[in-house]
Amino acid sequence: MESIWLNGTWTAAHALDTFRTMNPATGEALEGEYPVSSWQDCDLALNAAQHAFVALQKVAAEQRAAFLEAFARAIEARASELTETAHRETALPVRPRLADVELPRTTTQLRQAAQAARDGSWMQPVIDTKLNIRSCFAPIGPVVVFGPNNFPFAFNGVAGGDFAAAIAAGCPVIAKAHPLHPATSRLLAECARHATAVTGMPAAPLQMLYHLQPEDGLRLVADPRVGATAFTGSRAGGLALKRAADEAGRTIYLEMSSLNPIVFLPGALAERVDALVTETADSGLAAAGQFCTSPNLLFVVDGPHTDAFVQGLSSAYASRNPAPLLSHAGRDALHRSVQALTAAGATVRTGATPQSGSPGACYRNTVLQVSGAQFLAQAEALQKEAFGNVTTVVHCTDHAELLRALETLEGNLTASIYSAEDSADDALYHEVAARLRPRCGRLLNDKMPTGVALSPAMNHGGPYPSTGHAGFTAVGIPRSIQRFCALQCYDGVRQDRLPAALRDDAPARAAGPVA
Amino acid sequence: MESIWLNGTWTAAHALDTFRTMNPATGEALEGEYPVSSWQDCDLALNAAQHAFVALQKVAAEQRAAFLEAFARAIEARASELTETAHRETALPVRPRLADVELPRTTTQLRQAAQAARDGSWMQPVIDTKLNIRSCFAPIGPVVVFGPNNFPFAFNGVAGGDFAAAIAAGCPVIAKAHPLHPATSRLLAECARHATAVTGMPAAPLQMLYHLQPEDGLRLVADPRVGATAFTGSRAGGLALKRAADEAGRTIYLEMSSLNPIVFLPGALAERVDALVTETADSGLAAAGQFCTSPNLLFVVDGPHTDAFVQGLSSAYASRNPAPLLSHAGRDALHRSVQALTAAGATVRTGATPQSGSPGACYRNTVLQVSGAQFLAQAEALQKEAFGNVTTVVHCTDHAELLRALETLEGNLTASIYSAEDSADDALYHEVAARLRPRCGRLLNDKMPTGVALSPAMNHGGPYPSTGHAGFTAVGIPRSIQRFCALQCYDGVRQDRLPAALRDDAPARAAGPVA
Repeated sequence: MESIWLNGTWTAAHALDTFRTMNPATGEALEGEYPVSSWQDCDLALNAAQHAFVALQKVAAEQRAAFLEAFARAIEARASELTETAHRETALPVRPRLADVELPRTTTQLRQAAQAARDGSWMQPVIDTKLNIRSCFAPIGPVVVFGPNNFPFAFNGVAGGDFAAAIAAGCPVIAKAHPLHPATSRLLAECARHATAVTGMPAAPLQMLYHLQPEDGLRLVADPRVGATAFTGSRAGGLALKRAADEAGRTIYLEMSSLNPIVFLPGALAERVDALVTETADSGLAAAGQFCTSPNLLFVVDGPHTDAFVQGLSSAYASRNPAPLLSHAGRDALHRSVQALTAAGATVRTGATPQSGSPGACYRNTVLQVSGAQFLAQAEALQKEAFGNVTTVVHCTDHAELLRALETLEGNLTASIYSAEDSADDALYHEVAARLRPRCGRLLNDKMPTGVALSPAMNHGGPYPSTGHAGFTAVGIPRSIQRFCALQCYDGVRQDRLPAALRDDAPARAAGPVA
Repeated sequence: MESIWLNGTWTAAHALDTFRTMNPATGEALEGEYPVSSWQDCDLALNAAQHAFVALQKVAAEQRAAFLEAFARAIEARASELTETAHRETALPVRPRLADVELPRTTTQLRQAAQAARDGSWMQPVIDTKLNIRSCFAPIGPVVVFGPNNFPFAFNGVAGGDFAAAIAAGCPVIAKAHPLHPATSRLLAECARHATAVTGMPAAPLQMLYHLQPEDGLRLVADPRVGATAFTGSRAGGLALKRAADEAGRTIYLEMSSLNPIVFLPGALAERVDALVTETADSGLAAAGQFCTSPNLLFVVDGPHTDAFVQGLSSAYASRNPAPLLSHAGRDALHRSVQALTAAGATVRTGATPQSGSPGACYRNTVLQVSGAQFLAQAEALQKEAFGNVTTVVHCTDHAELLRALETLEGNLTASIYSAEDSADDALYHEVAARLRPRCGRLLNDKMPTGVALSPAMNHGGPYPSTGHAGFTAVGIPRSIQRFCALQCYDGVRQDRLPAALRDDAPARAAGPVA
């Protein structure tokens, strides 16, 4: 049985059980047996993280930055091994996805976090020299990260965006690795171990558990030793953790389900229906539709090009080979979601069954269709997320029905509007945008939502239930760091007792607002 | 029966019941009968606020600012009437408290909010011109404000800090006025009506209800038409609302109970014990101890001046006349809290009974004392808030016991440390500060916590359970505005469709971070 990463060393778990993994592309069992940790392991991780938090407060920002950069280099040094391992565990292709996109994304995030740790802008110091009142953001304490199944590197609790943001602020991480890619997580933890050693970190900034029983997860996020929790995953899992954290008064950030609605306005379809079909299929089928921002819900209004769009999309989905999903269990869950959608009135244009004759976790690329009237009648049921290569087209009779349908949308991470290049769609655009804007975190024009750029202007967040708080983002440094901060004020505190960033001679002082 | 303020007009309530008020200084009934609103009134207020939210989005920031300033002027124009009315309802003195401190504080907040609305810094625009990704904070929707009993102007849902911050962001307010000062709230709403009219606001930015049944309050904060709720009041009330809001995925900010611990280090007592006694009594008995930041819990270590401090404080409390509390019910609740504290092991140094022979809601100024060992044994019970003129001294045997006791503290709004002017206390200071810092929002040196300056550097917030989220403050513009914001991103959106603050020609563009 593999060891867990605790207190700077590989440690035998107090396991309640063990689990093994399977290559989702082949159905073959993979090597390695991993522990399902007991609460005792959580308790040890919490104590270690609490100790590390105290130690990290005494570490200069420069050393945290050096650690993050050393971690990035360590990942690059083992890139082949990492991408091969992740490929076996997830079936995501080594190239371009893992080696050319996700691994560089991960190291970029670590380096951006290093830069943020160094420049300290996330602290947002405000100094009132007249009253000698000063405040800034400070690390909130140990951060628990629940990583998702769909990004073995970039959202992994051990090395991904949440990890990078927490460390940038000075918060140690307790990672609950995703049980679909434990070998990848183990390798990443090894890279973190190496980076900790070469940069002389005083205590392990990372603890890693492979798997937990659900009740121990709930207990973990409610524990008073935890500063905050970041979760990326399903709505059901996220809401259960939210309830436990809320009840205990603990801070939790959730990145849950999102359908990422796209509205195709008539002028756009008239102008470039074939291009839009291709663009939608490319985005909707990328990674077999297993992105948080995959376009799962498309809105069109009856018109001369509407049937061509729906027919074209169905043909495109039918003609492409489905990529394997991340697990056989995920394929089965996807099928149950499709059945729920058809039970709610959606009709099948193509797909809607597992891919026969494949040992892999493949599901046929699926396009469902529903009328605007039916969507309005079953708005909640038809917003059930189907995580995978499934897209539902809502075919509205007219503009009024479209607008009413948009008003039933739950909170989403993204929403997109495609409109004519000229002003043909402008009037309708504004009506549509007014309805989508409060219901999403990122509003796009003529662009698919599946690229989540590592930009300081990015918002990978949105209204509930896409997340738990519309004021925060999980991607985009430095803003993503704010999740792991407490606001701390110093009133009448003597100069030599202030944090460096709040002293009269602080380098950042000139930059921050001064009253 | 008085009318409620709905949709820009005084409207007859759908009342389930009515209530009357009493002058807490005299016990005399005051004029006026006020409605306890039914859900129907809440529903009307929600619809009106939703309508106002849409209308407010089309209003220039300058007009919002003008409204806030006109509101401040309207309050000043009726200052005598307001302070006399509030005095009758709360027993707080007209001068200096109401006329010279709280009313100017209220108008200053409104004007600071106006300035923030105008300069737009709260939007924090970030523009990535290379990728054409832009984001900023935007108003989250209608804001419900539950005002507390202890600040009839400055924290009133109708005119106080939460109101000002919400309007600055462009969020209309539904105020649940506090039932201990309905006539004051009515007058403030009249001032808001006047300001709405003279500045030509398109829809009423304020709805006001006087009172609700508890179950309707829970339903209100969970309603999907609400963007966020701000609550200031008791822990029990706040936690009930939090549960309802959390369960529905609605955003809520709470400013609940806080004991505001003060640690007097030995060197400070040696240097200036008499001055510290006076300073503590002045702060602890100000407004009969009914501030969110009143010092309710004092820590001292056994030493040559400790008894002098405790004895001096007891004498000072005993010798001063108790001011009336805000209500007779509050006096009774205070007495129950004192009984709970003594049941948990605190001994009475002075007070601990209602003031006899007074028609007013007076309670004898009370000093309780408990040993460090007893505090450690009953840490939770001895942290029960006693809202009023009651202070508990924890007398620790030595430094180690003091530090252990501090480690049991719940989250507080403030924590203060008094130390010697020279370096005599420095070593202990750092040990104490390390324990207090993560347990409070504002850390003070040699200063009582009861002044909450209107500074952009202020943090009137803190770790749970003093608030519901340690990342936000209820006082200090512009930061307090962030509570009522959603992060909104625009990706690939055409220039003419962007909010003004995110366009290439935005005046703020030069100031915001640009990637």
